[in-house]
Amino acid sequence: MKVVKFGGSSLASGEQIEKVFRIIVSDPERKVVVVSAPGKRNPDDLKVTDLLIDCADRALRLGDAGDLFHSVLDRYILIAKQLKLPEGIISRIHDDLLNVINGDKSSPDHYLDAVKASGEDNLAKLIAAYFQAQGVEAHYVNPGEAGMIVTDEPGNARILPEAYDHLFSLRSRSGILIVPGFFGYTENGKVLTFSRSGSDITGSILANGIKASLYENFTDVDAVYSVNPNVVDDPKEIKELTYREMRELSYAGFSVFHDEALIPAFKAGIPVHIKNTNNPNAPGTKVMNERKAVNGPVIGIASDQGFCSVYVSKYLMNREVGFGRTLLQILVELGLSYEHTPSGIDDISIIIRQSQINEELEQQIIDRIYEELHADEVKIERNLALVMIVGEGMRHNVGTMARASTALARAGINIEMINQGSSEVSMMFGVKEAEEARAVQALYREFFD
Amino acid sequence: MKVVKFGGSSLASGEQIEKVFRIIVSDPERKVVVVSAPGKRNPDDLKVTDLLIDCADRALRLGDAGDLFHSVLDRYILIAKQLKLPEGIISRIHDDLLNVINGDKSSPDHYLDAVKASGEDNLAKLIAAYFQAQGVEAHYVNPGEAGMIVTDEPGNARILPEAYDHLFSLRSRSGILIVPGFFGYTENGKVLTFSRSGSDITGSILANGIKASLYENFTDVDAVYSVNPNVVDDPKEIKELTYREMRELSYAGFSVFHDEALIPAFKAGIPVHIKNTNNPNAPGTKVMNERKAVNGPVIGIASDQGFCSVYVSKYLMNREVGFGRTLLQILVELGLSYEHTPSGIDDISIIIRQSQINEELEQQIIDRIYEELHADEVKIERNLALVMIVGEGMRHNVGTMARASTALARAGINIEMINQGSSEVSMMFGVKEAEEARAVQALYREFFD
Repeated sequence: MKVVKFGGSSLASGEQIEKVFRIIVSDPERKVVVVSAPGKRNPDDLKVTDLLIDCADRALRLGDAGDLFHSVLDRYILIAKQLKLPEGIISRIHDDLLNVINGDKSSPDHYLDAVKASGEDNLAKLIAAYFQAQGVEAHYVNPGEAGMIVTDEPGNARILPEAYDHLFSLRSRSGILIVPGFFGYTENGKVLTFSRSGSDITGSILANGIKASLYENFTDVDAVYSVNPNVVDDPKEIKELTYREMRELSYAGFSVFHDEALIPAFKAGIPVHIKNTNNPNAPGTKVMNERKAVNGPVIGIASDQGFCSVYVSKYLMNREVGFGRTLLQILVELGLSYEHTPSGIDDISIIIRQSQINEELEQQIIDRIYEELHADEVKIERNLALVMIVGEGMRHNVGTMARASTALARAGINIEMINQGSSEVSMMFGVKEAEEARAVQALYREFFD
Repeated sequence: MKVVKFGGSSLASGEQIEKVFRIIVSDPERKVVVVSAPGKRNPDDLKVTDLLIDCADRALRLGDAGDLFHSVLDRYILIAKQLKLPEGIISRIHDDLLNVINGDKSSPDHYLDAVKASGEDNLAKLIAAYFQAQGVEAHYVNPGEAGMIVTDEPGNARILPEAYDHLFSLRSRSGILIVPGFFGYTENGKVLTFSRSGSDITGSILANGIKASLYENFTDVDAVYSVNPNVVDDPKEIKELTYREMRELSYAGFSVFHDEALIPAFKAGIPVHIKNTNNPNAPGTKVMNERKAVNGPVIGIASDQGFCSVYVSKYLMNREVGFGRTLLQILVELGLSYEHTPSGIDDISIIIRQSQINEELEQQIIDRIYEELHADEVKIERNLALVMIVGEGMRHNVGTMARASTALARAGINIEMINQGSSEVSMMFGVKEAEEARAVQALYREFFD
């Protein structure tokens, strides 16, 4: 039994939904279908979710959504026409949408969540109607009725542990179940949305809840690439990826999944298969607990810009019990989170995302470290990039660092910082931003060419 | 004007003191001579300081030092005979020693300090007498009278800032000044000793106080070696070393100096010249703020055993503000100091000296991290060695990491951890203890052969 999730671009038009239909019915194991709201049909198009946010904003300010109401409804009307659906479904969506937009505005956050959620909810109803019109037994399933109970945190709801037991009973329902992604219900019946990539979260929770054998996640790319295609031409596709590898890659610029989305599937040990709605026969990329295929130590290379390093040195720092903790405490008090803390004997560098600091805060950081820790030197170096090579195959693979650092040296790139902990699933190199692309290319040539 | 310090083995016998005399008079700039207590004459010999500690212990327990008194005095009598000194100096030392041993025992710690300090004090008197007997103007200088004022911390006294001004006036005294190392006086006249390597500290303070042009430190080796001679045969000598390099090397097994000893000289920018009393024409090793001679990126290789790694992983750790700080707080509360914290995205390893933890504490660490941080995995790996390559020449030297890691890979050594901060004066590799010697040898071959 599989859970299958489709992203917004896979559901943006009638033509796309026909592809989805063929994908679902081609495999009787595809039982639970999670749908997003209609996405962009072309790069200049608007997503229904963004239109709904505008609707909610306007309604909160002016009392009604005005023309925006029809901008949303028209998307559904067009899809219904393309799919040759009877009128009934559109009047149902019209009434639902009107109802939501005219709903209780006493808590703007809750109101916004309810309006946003309608994008997925109405498309799920439409798709269920389309499946039925094709003579396939399919049912729209309301998340609340299915037991998708969440915390009362608008825009950032979290699933409650007891929800999984409720969801398990979906297994015994007949037909294909069409579930809107992105939202759940509080115990007293309010609609609350998950965070970013909310439909991925719904799919992941459902996969866990029904103990699926596989969570298929259909999007618009054939596979996850081993490196950013904007940096390296025609890069290799990744066939299999472990959860840890995916997480390490997504840290530094890979945006396959919002990290938290996969936790429920990950915890239940359910593999996630990333596939292309527009090319369903492509093998795709499978994310799993362990992978068999070992094609060299490195599976992917990721990189991200916008880091800076706070360098602190003090003679005999190493002897001062509590130095590091006090230093981190200063950062916490200044509201900063940090990424890594490579250290020498009498120096430590704290790598932070520089979007967090402006010039004033930079001076505060420097002043406090001098004052409270009596440092000999404090300096901030901006515009660093972190380049990571990732792969379970690096565990106990003697020589990966030698290959990586030799490749960087050959390209004339100075390594500002190295961080290799005992996980051995990744190695991280700090380089100047200006050298980021060349560093990634050099590492790609070494491990993939 | 130079400060010259001699270690215990350079002063263990009359013959050695004759060498010292010739060294001092060969350079009129050698103005202030700091002496240790008589050291070992052969590997099975006893140091006078250790004999004095036994004396103090016995006197505290039984009221007098018994035969131990004569064991100490005999060392001075023998040296005086070897140097053909008149009887007067021995009766002076006899009386001083008796006086100290019969001194106030109401504070055992202070009593112990006074007895220990007499080892240096009496040898300084003897050496001043010997210089005078050779017709050279030389004076014993009592540290209290010279203004060496210290804090009242037995066994760990610290110089008070105002002492430096007093000491500056030593410049205008006539003749060679023989100053006992290892101790100073509190403001109300109590004798207090410095910590370990106390004579090095005295020399360093005096160098700062008189604004010496050089602090010469005579010991029993020709120079500092680039690597432990027990691991690599006939290693290269280091001609020049910066303070930072020395500090990094001394962290991991190099025992040239007790780190803190050099701070006063270091702060005044005074170079330290390490030389051999038994071979004073050897060039020795100079420790200074900056060095000119650049013979490749690496100046030395050091290593030390007895580390362990506390590995903590938690999915999405990276998102948890304060995770690292809380982790370090747990260690501080358990009384542990840590060395380094290399980290991945969702894992962090804390490198600590394993002498700090027994099995019970190990379990406590693991339990608390699981409980308080809800970690997914916590494990402790013992028996790690840290191997460091050190050199100012590594700054902005592209390819040093490539050479080092390739050398280790060629020797089949797995790198458990790498830590390279932005100081770029050192790179640190964590390896299994069993591979430590082979790792050091491989790195030596790469950078020195």
